[in-house]
Parts: sequence; C-alpha cells; structure tokens
Amino acid sequence: MRITVLAGGIGGARFLRGLSALLDREYPGSEITVIGNTGDDIWVHGLRVCPDLDTVMYTLGSGISEERGWGREGETFTVKDELASYGVEPSWFGLGDKDIATHLVRTQSLASGYTLTQVTGALCEHWQPGVRLLPMSDDRAETHVIVDDPSGATAPDGTPLRTAIHFQEWWIRYRASLPAHGFALVGIDTAKPGPDVIDAIMSADLVLFPPSNPVVSIGTILQVPGIADAVRTTPAPVVGVSPIVGGAPVRGMADACLTAIGIQTSAAAVAAHYGARASGGLIDAWLVDSTDAAEVPAIEALGIRCLAVPAMMTDIAATADIAAACLAIAGPVPASQ
Amino acid sequence: MRITVLAGGIGGARFLRGLSALLDREYPGSEITVIGNTGDDIWVHGLRVCPDLDTVMYTLGSGISEERGWGREGETFTVKDELASYGVEPSWFGLGDKDIATHLVRTQSLASGYTLTQVTGALCEHWQPGVRLLPMSDDRAETHVIVDDPSGATAPDGTPLRTAIHFQEWWIRYRASLPAHGFALVGIDTAKPGPDVIDAIMSADLVLFPPSNPVVSIGTILQVPGIADAVRTTPAPVVGVSPIVGGAPVRGMADACLTAIGIQTSAAAVAAHYGARASGGLIDAWLVDSTDAAEVPAIEALGIRCLAVPAMMTDIAATADIAAACLAIAGPVPASQ
Repeated sequence: MRITVLAGGIGGARFLRGLSALLDREYPGSEITVIGNTGDDIWVHGLRVCPDLDTVMYTLGSGISEERGWGREGETFTVKDELASYGVEPSWFGLGDKDIATHLVRTQSLASGYTLTQVTGALCEHWQPGVRLLPMSDDRAETHVIVDDPSGATAPDGTPLRTAIHFQEWWIRYRASLPAHGFALVGIDTAKPGPDVIDAIMSADLVLFPPSNPVVSIGTILQVPGIADAVRTTPAPVVGVSPIVGGAPVRGMADACLTAIGIQTSAAAVAAHYGARASGGLIDAWLVDSTDAAEVPAIEALGIRCLAVPAMMTDIAATADIAAACLAIAGPVPASQ
Repeated sequence: MRITVLAGGIGGARFLRGLSALLDREYPGSEITVIGNTGDDIWVHGLRVCPDLDTVMYTLGSGISEERGWGREGETFTVKDELASYGVEPSWFGLGDKDIATHLVRTQSLASGYTLTQVTGALCEHWQPGVRLLPMSDDRAETHVIVDDPSGATAPDGTPLRTAIHFQEWWIRYRASLPAHGFALVGIDTAKPGPDVIDAIMSADLVLFPPSNPVVSIGTILQVPGIADAVRTTPAPVVGVSPIVGGAPVRGMADACLTAIGIQTSAAAVAAHYGARASGGLIDAWLVDSTDAAEVPAIEALGIRCLAVPAMMTDIAATADIAAACLAIAGPVPASQ
C-alpha cells in the first residue's frame, strides 16, 4: 500500500509515527511518502532552517526531544547563547547545537547547488525515518503574517500601520499573540511542486491529512500551484484527521490562524474549509474526536464521510489506532502492488 | 607610543598579552596595532574560520582556552560531533560550539558585503582586546603545503606524486608530519594589504615580530605585496623575538616549516632569514633566549643588534619582561604624541 501524507511539524510527525507503527504491524512492505511543509522555513544567522522537515525527520528517526516536540533530544544551546552575547538577531529562535549541524550540512549542500529535495534525501540517509520525505517545493515560498506594526506605529489618522513579519517571528517571538490580519506566502506564485510531489499524490493508494495546522501547514502545502489540483483529482481516497478537538487546537495555535482567515475553530468548520471532493473540494472523509461526535451529522451533510473516534495522539499505540480508523473510513483501498 | 605587531596565532597572542600588560603599566595611552595572519584561514562546513585572528581576539579578550592555547575556554564540541555523525568532512578540524557563533557572525557579515577588516572590528567590539586588530588583507590568500600525495600515489616511474593540501589539513590532520616540499600562497599575487595595514607600519614608533612562526605566520604576512617593503622602509625600528630556543620551536611545528624552505632551526638562522634592515632586510634587532647566548655574535655580525634574555613566555609577567627587552633594544623610541 502506498500512502501519501501532507504534513506540518509536530502534529504531522506524531501522526506519522503512529501510521508507521500500524503499517509495520499490519501492512508490511507499505510505503509512506511525506510531503513536508517548507512555508515556515527561515534563514537564521546564514543557516537554512526547515523546522517542519526536521521535526518529521527527527521524530521518525528517534532523535526528537519528546518533551518539546521539536529539536533534538539532549539538546544544548551554546551557540545560541554565544550569538546572543554578540548582540546579533534573531535571538528568539531556538537554534540548538545538535540542530545546527543539520543546518550547516543543509546550507552548504544548497550552496553547492543541490536542491532541497536532494539535500533532504541525503539527511534522511542518516536519520532513516522509514518514509520518503519530500519538501513541498524546492523553491522558496515563505509564510509571512500581516499584523499591526508591533512598534505601535500609526498613520496620521490614527489607524495602525500594518506590516508583514516572518511566520516564525509571529509564532515563536510573539507566540501568535499579535492578531493576524492574514497570511502572505512570499514566492508561492512561482513556486513549483518538488519533482516527485504530484506523482506521489496521483499514484498513491491513499492520501492523508494528519492533524496538522490547516492554515499554515497543510494550507500552505495546498497553495503550491498544482498540489491542490492533484489532491482533488487523484484516484486515491483523501482522508483527514481534525486538528481541532472540543473547539480548540490539540496543540499549537491553529485557532489564531483560523481566526485570521475567518474560519471558526471547530472540527466541522475545518472540514468545511477543506470541502468534499464530491463537490470539488479536497477530502472524502474526516475523523473527529469523540468529544465532537455532535458535529458528525453536519460534516456528513457536506458530503464528507465522518466518524468520531478517540483522536488524541497520547502515545504511539493510540496514534496507530487513529491511523487505522483513517484506513477504515477510506473504504477498501486497492493495494497498488 | 604606537607599536605595530605582525602576529600569528598562539605565540603572537601570548606575546601581545605581555606587551599589553607592560604598556598599561609603563606607557599608559600607548596604542597597539596587530597585523594578523589570515593565510591559514579556512572555510569549514560553509563557515569562514580565521584561526589566528580569533586566537589573538580571544586571548586578549580573556576568552581563550589557556590549556589548549586556541579556541574558547569551557568549550564544547556538540556541533562537531553531530557533523561527524553525518559523515561530512573535514572531521579533523576542531570546531567548538562557542567558536561557531563567531564564525556564523563573521560568515554572515562577509556574505552581507562587509570586508574582513570591518567584520573583525565588529567582533572586537564585543571582545575588547585592547588592540586594533587588522587582518593582513581583505583578500583571500591561503597557505597550501606541497607534499607527496598522502594516498601514496606515484608516477609510472615510481616517483611520488606531489599535491597541495590546505595548511590546516597539514598542520592539524597530519600534525606537520608529511614532509613539506614548500608552501604555495594561493591568491597572494593579487592580494592587497588591508586598508590601514601599510599606514600602521609606516606611522608606528616601533614594529615588532613576536615569536610567531617565521614561515607560515610572519612569513605569510610579509608576502602580501607591499607589507615587506613597508617593514624595510618604515622610520620605526623593527625588533623581533626568536621563536626558536635551543634549536627547537618554543611551541608548534616551526621546524617542519623552516626545513621545508631550507632554513636551519636556530635563532641565528631565522635572524639571517629576516636579514638586517641596514642591508635591505627586515629587522634592526633580535632577541634570543639566554640558552642561545652563543649565537649572539653571529647575529650581530649580520648587522642585527642582538641580546640574549630569558625569552620563554611562561606567564604574563615574564612575557612583559620580554616586551620590555624589545623596547630597550629598539633604542630611544620617539613617542609619536
């Protein structure tokens, strides 16, 4: 069975770990391809950092800090502290020492002319995540957030001036507390999907949206020209897991992102945002947490099959059960081989 | 009093610490300008590393590892170990975590268009070494070492093939154990002295050669077009301290370098190599260690004033005494202000 997953950072990585455990047990020989979000990539101190790709790679490669959910286990921050002593910015980005080795290898490989897809493949030879990890694009397409200028600057008439800051600055430095007026994906218009991305969607037996951020993770991947069309038209069923449980994000600050684009923070609203494939949308089926069982009828009314299951990824076994529910609701999936 | 010092790494830095202590005590308000060797600079994992500039900066800025003589006190090597786990080379270069912050700031500043002189000035604002530290050149001029190919490759007639390796590879990886057939300063022909370098020599009250490596440190600086001429013609006296004591280098592997260019490892041979300014050479006076008192007459016969003094830099006080002997043998130095 060939499964293609569109994934952001922590939520996507944890889901993948459960999916991987399930397939190893029940469907040996299956292949997982991950299309990773690179919209929150950032250049920090001259290093190219790919937070979501690395979170997937470290999580599946057993190198992740379980406590933080991002970065390396047993990480130290000597370089970061030294950079701060030089007074150089950004000082708010959590650049760990072990992590820096990854960024150095990536940055130098990119400078040597390799594509991000090639570099990610090379890094994964070391990490052996057990999945094929493909950046959504080899082109730079960075999420920026439109906010009122943090300095409080106003126009002569008193209207707050708006500015765009990098997604990471909004997310980490301001903890998504500055109200977002919207998102600007700088470079997205001319970005091309990575070389195998479209094929991975079109030739999959099943496409999954894990409980990643529907706006700045999966939403970003879907804005790369060609990817949403592939999801709409692939012969494979497309199944998603709600990142919203009981009206709040399971983790992270997806509510701030949803609010910014005018969507309610509810499992049903996110399902409606993706839309039913039968009506030109993106998903065939949607899993919500048992807490949100009352939302099932409304979601089904959209033409999206829906099931309420325990959908909290409390550990790998619980997550494997969620993945199993994805396979079940997808219906009979014809094995490609 | 304005003193200009041509300096390599550890030996130069330790001499400067003693000189600085002497001037603070005896000649307050004096200024030291250091012309630093950048011939052993290297790009490692995409980072621009300036070993000699950093050794001077850290030593005078109280950040040096006293035990090693290079790199930072309390240093860790997490990034280096992680890079090794990725299998990327070079794995033999001692890249410390704290040190990496310096290299990141430098590399990014250079990429932004600042010159090495400007970047070094900015780093020194943090370190406050108490001297003006000038790279010998803003241009890339790297010392390579001509050796028999380390792989043992030979020509059809059995002659060993020769190859050029970076100075750091020879020095650190091979501990200067591969016999050197010579040195090639790649880029030196078109390198220009740093903006204030010639003026620092021409307008000094005294020019000093500390006990740095006469071949790959001071010798390299002197090969930047214009620098040797400035040393020959400056109105200031030029005084050197022998890096050779009792027929062996005080520290490091200067003997391997001297042998490569056909010079004996002795205090007198190095003095003769520099030559008397009165005869178109580079130095007016030369300090040797008491151990080498027997060499004094031969050196004086070259037209170089010479004195045997305790010349081991065992601590800052002993080094200040060596610096004081430099001032004494220089003769009455007219204070510039």
